[in-house]
Amino acid sequence: MSTDLALHIGALRLVDHHVHSSLDHPVTRPEFEGHLTESDRPVPEGTTQFDSQIGFAVRRHCAPVLGLAPHATAEEYWQARAARTPAELTRLFFEAAGTGHWIVDTGFADGLLPLGDLAGTVPGEFSEVVRLESVLEDVAPASTAATLERDFRAALADAAASAAGLKSIVAYRHGFDVEPARPSAAEVTRAAGRWLATLSGGARPRVTDPVLLRMVLWAGVDTGLPLQLHAGFGDPDLDLRRSDPLLLAPWIRAVEPAGTRVALLHCYPFHRNAGFLAEAFPHVYFDVGLAVNHTGAASAAVIAESLELAPFSKILYSSDAWGPPELHHLGALLWRRGMTRALARWVGEGEWAERDAMRVATMVGRTNAERLYGLSDD
Amino acid sequence: MSTDLALHIGALRLVDHHVHSSLDHPVTRPEFEGHLTESDRPVPEGTTQFDSQIGFAVRRHCAPVLGLAPHATAEEYWQARAARTPAELTRLFFEAAGTGHWIVDTGFADGLLPLGDLAGTVPGEFSEVVRLESVLEDVAPASTAATLERDFRAALADAAASAAGLKSIVAYRHGFDVEPARPSAAEVTRAAGRWLATLSGGARPRVTDPVLLRMVLWAGVDTGLPLQLHAGFGDPDLDLRRSDPLLLAPWIRAVEPAGTRVALLHCYPFHRNAGFLAEAFPHVYFDVGLAVNHTGAASAAVIAESLELAPFSKILYSSDAWGPPELHHLGALLWRRGMTRALARWVGEGEWAERDAMRVATMVGRTNAERLYGLSDD
Amino acid sequence: MSTDLALHIGALRLVDHHVHSSLDHPVTRPEFEGHLTESDRPVPEGTTQFDSQIGFAVRRHCAPVLGLAPHATAEEYWQARAARTPAELTRLFFEAAGTGHWIVDTGFADGLLPLGDLAGTVPGEFSEVVRLESVLEDVAPASTAATLERDFRAALADAAASAAGLKSIVAYRHGFDVEPARPSAAEVTRAAGRWLATLSGGARPRVTDPVLLRMVLWAGVDTGLPLQLHAGFGDPDLDLRRSDPLLLAPWIRAVEPAGTRVALLHCYPFHRNAGFLAEAFPHVYFDVGLAVNHTGAASAAVIAESLELAPFSKILYSSDAWGPPELHHLGALLWRRGMTRALARWVGEGEWAERDAMRVATMVGRTNAERLYGLSDD
Repeated sequence: MSTDLALHIGALRLVDHHVHSSLDHPVTRPEFEGHLTESDRPVPEGTTQFDSQIGFAVRRHCAPVLGLAPHATAEEYWQARAARTPAELTRLFFEAAGTGHWIVDTGFADGLLPLGDLAGTVPGEFSEVVRLESVLEDVAPASTAATLERDFRAALADAAASAAGLKSIVAYRHGFDVEPARPSAAEVTRAAGRWLATLSGGARPRVTDPVLLRMVLWAGVDTGLPLQLHAGFGDPDLDLRRSDPLLLAPWIRAVEPAGTRVALLHCYPFHRNAGFLAEAFPHVYFDVGLAVNHTGAASAAVIAESLELAPFSKILYSSDAWGPPELHHLGALLWRRGMTRALARWVGEGEWAERDAMRVATMVGRTNAERLYGLSDD
Repeated sequence: MSTDLALHIGALRLVDHHVHSSLDHPVTRPEFEGHLTESDRPVPEGTTQFDSQIGFAVRRHCAPVLGLAPHATAEEYWQARAARTPAELTRLFFEAAGTGHWIVDTGFADGLLPLGDLAGTVPGEFSEVVRLESVLEDVAPASTAATLERDFRAALADAAASAAGLKSIVAYRHGFDVEPARPSAAEVTRAAGRWLATLSGGARPRVTDPVLLRMVLWAGVDTGLPLQLHAGFGDPDLDLRRSDPLLLAPWIRAVEPAGTRVALLHCYPFHRNAGFLAEAFPHVYFDVGLAVNHTGAASAAVIAESLELAPFSKILYSSDAWGPPELHHLGALLWRRGMTRALARWVGEGEWAERDAMRVATMVGRTNAERLYGLSDD
Repeated sequence: MSTDLALHIGALRLVDHHVHSSLDHPVTRPEFEGHLTESDRPVPEGTTQFDSQIGFAVRRHCAPVLGLAPHATAEEYWQARAARTPAELTRLFFEAAGTGHWIVDTGFADGLLPLGDLAGTVPGEFSEVVRLESVLEDVAPASTAATLERDFRAALADAAASAAGLKSIVAYRHGFDVEPARPSAAEVTRAAGRWLATLSGGARPRVTDPVLLRMVLWAGVDTGLPLQLHAGFGDPDLDLRRSDPLLLAPWIRAVEPAGTRVALLHCYPFHRNAGFLAEAFPHVYFDVGLAVNHTGAASAAVIAESLELAPFSKILYSSDAWGPPELHHLGALLWRRGMTRALARWVGEGEWAERDAMRVATMVGRTNAERLYGLSDD
């Protein structure tokens, strides 16, 4: 393997363009194992979530950060982790990641450090991504059918003022098979009335109405900020079939004239479909974020597949880490190793020049995100 | 490649958790070639089915079992095969497989040795899987609309008493886009009436009615036995698009509270989708069975893709061999070689410990199936 | 890597069974970059289409044909290219390709050399593929609802008399989710009336009516000529989800009794689905044409995936090059390198005999197409 290329990618200051914050509290071992899967179900009896690609990757690559040998046992790893405070773990792993800029989705953050606290704990730049559906759910209790859209747009304008981008989880809440067109004001008012009537005083509102989800998406488009969309696999709530980004193509076409750029997140196992969309449409970007952590040693193959069709200027890096700071480190480390393997193979085969491989790694790992989100790179 | 790992995987006593019996009669060369494809059509003029991954794998790996050099020609292979009786071939290839326990689907077995005869011919443990649709088709001629479900459930209780698991081919008969819910008794009675009215005295009944297929599936769930489902590719009858296991997600969710475990068989080319389901849902398992034999030398890539997302405790080995006993051997051999290649690469890259690789091979090749089907491992 | 195998594949005279002609005029740099993507949109600001797999492959493999070092910069490449006439470029790259027979789709050819001129410029055999929709659009202005089908069939009979095959772009114009059955004469007349009424004197007619598209497909079937179908990715017009060849399975079944053979073109990212169809149905062939050029260094993985399930007698080579003659060369070169990598790996692993690997390369690269299109192989 090319040493210079490996050194270059190893030293690259990354922009993690979609990530969440770190745990603000200690966890039990079952809770920790629960963070090593997108499933929210209990681990089946007689098994451990450590027996997975992500579990093996934690034992291989996070163990040394805690002073253990690579491939420490699950029990050794757990003991070493349990001996440290959440703040110590966050500092250790965020520093190990070599990420220079974190773009943090603050929309689903129970049990996580507030962004300000995180930024005070670890070095690096921080930007915020605002989750559209969360803004709507925040304003709903004090809104009426007639005011919901206006209230939402006002709250979004406030939130977006300091944000680097927006995010939607329409894939979870409905699926990408939404009507592409902007809903009319009358449609929104009717849908708002139906939804608000179902809200009780207690539980947090949860929007799943497709008309409201479309209104929210189009309001996001209207801000002109880059708009991130969860695509592909996630937790069992998700209907994976309906989160194939190809289903979103009509909406992507409808958005194109507005000039708003769209970043498809994760996309596995539909990352080749996402690559097509990023090739076809100038305003579409994508990453294989979450899939890198969860496919561990196998992520090199997924990363190589993400480099097939899309121009290199349209591919991004993210960890999509949520919770244990191991994931913030591991995402970066596995991406570096997977990129190095894919690119070093092409260099070794004589297909790519090494200087081009370095340049592409820098584009995907940092400069594409700087350009997309308008980050200063000082 | 790691020698210890190759030796370990080479010596592993496998559980083939989904397989059929061996031919009970000699075959012609066109018949033999017809068993080297899932297609039921004649081989196109000027071509031979030996010119395929599975054909090359037979010439490479089955030829030595018959005393020929690896890569013997198709004609040499055919002559050597034709010189032996079906019983000799069965003994030779079943012994070569190194499989310790065969879980045999007895539901579609024209021209195959009865399970008792097979078990008397070759060493190893044998268990039975009962095909749900076959049980229904067996009882139909003597049933009425009012008694069909009751008769079926009684026959299923008898058959299931000594079975390790059940199997459904709803993917073939309708597709996974069935309504997920248990049908009502009235719906079943109406559908039974419609279906029974179409049965003639002669032909064997063939159930394709979605209400009856759902009834059958839910009756299977009610037994508590593991339930195998054909998924992904098969013969030309199959509408492959409708056998994507993602279509089954609503039914998988509906079954979850019952505690019945579901094993998705084969799944190619949707094996990454199956991996997601096995990760998301504690009761879902899967294999890439049939695809290993049919992709031959290329199966290492398919096997590696099956190891991406699902916890290693949820992945199974099967050959899905049907007919020529070459396939019972080849499935095991190609799985060993593909697993060794995938795991040795990760060990060689420093991503996995070799002891973990051995342990995962043992889980996928044997112990996961022992746990799922409650097999004693003496 | 096996040297004999590489030499054999390197020297193979290919049949490029689906290709377009070469540019007949000089292009600007933005126009040239536009030919390095299927997108018809402007390249986003601050980026260049050279930064893609196909762009890197041009710099690597086309630069030496123009006397530059491999991996010349985009600017160096552009200067060297701009210094040559279109005719010089066509001669250089067509000769470099090592393709012995070009089967040329003449249906969409603005700005391209007429087939006769191309055949006069470069050595090699040439055959024509007639695009069905173009024939219909040519006859439409002079037809009436009552005569359209008859006029079309007459024009098709003329065009087909000297053609090696036909092509349909129903995937672009509607999607593969067409009704499979042959439309009735009354349906066609009604649809023709609706369509013809929309035609103005000026713009070229463009058929998207599904009844007319089906009529055209079935008229193609009736000729008995091999029928090529664009499948999988293409430009942004395409609804990629609806160009999955699995959607075409009902039509493929309906066509089977007619004996007409069907060649699915490109198919990416659905090439595994195409492999299933080619395995299941004797009359189905496929290639990964366009995807080889556009995935560049990564095409070896796509080619390997195309060799999984289908019998080797059903897989074809094409470049699908359109416009810059670099693509006519690059398609052949990348196919040779990708085939060599895939097959040499299996030979090196002891899975395939080298003589079989050579034979399969010859089948896919030439003799399958000779058999399918009835080409003489002098």
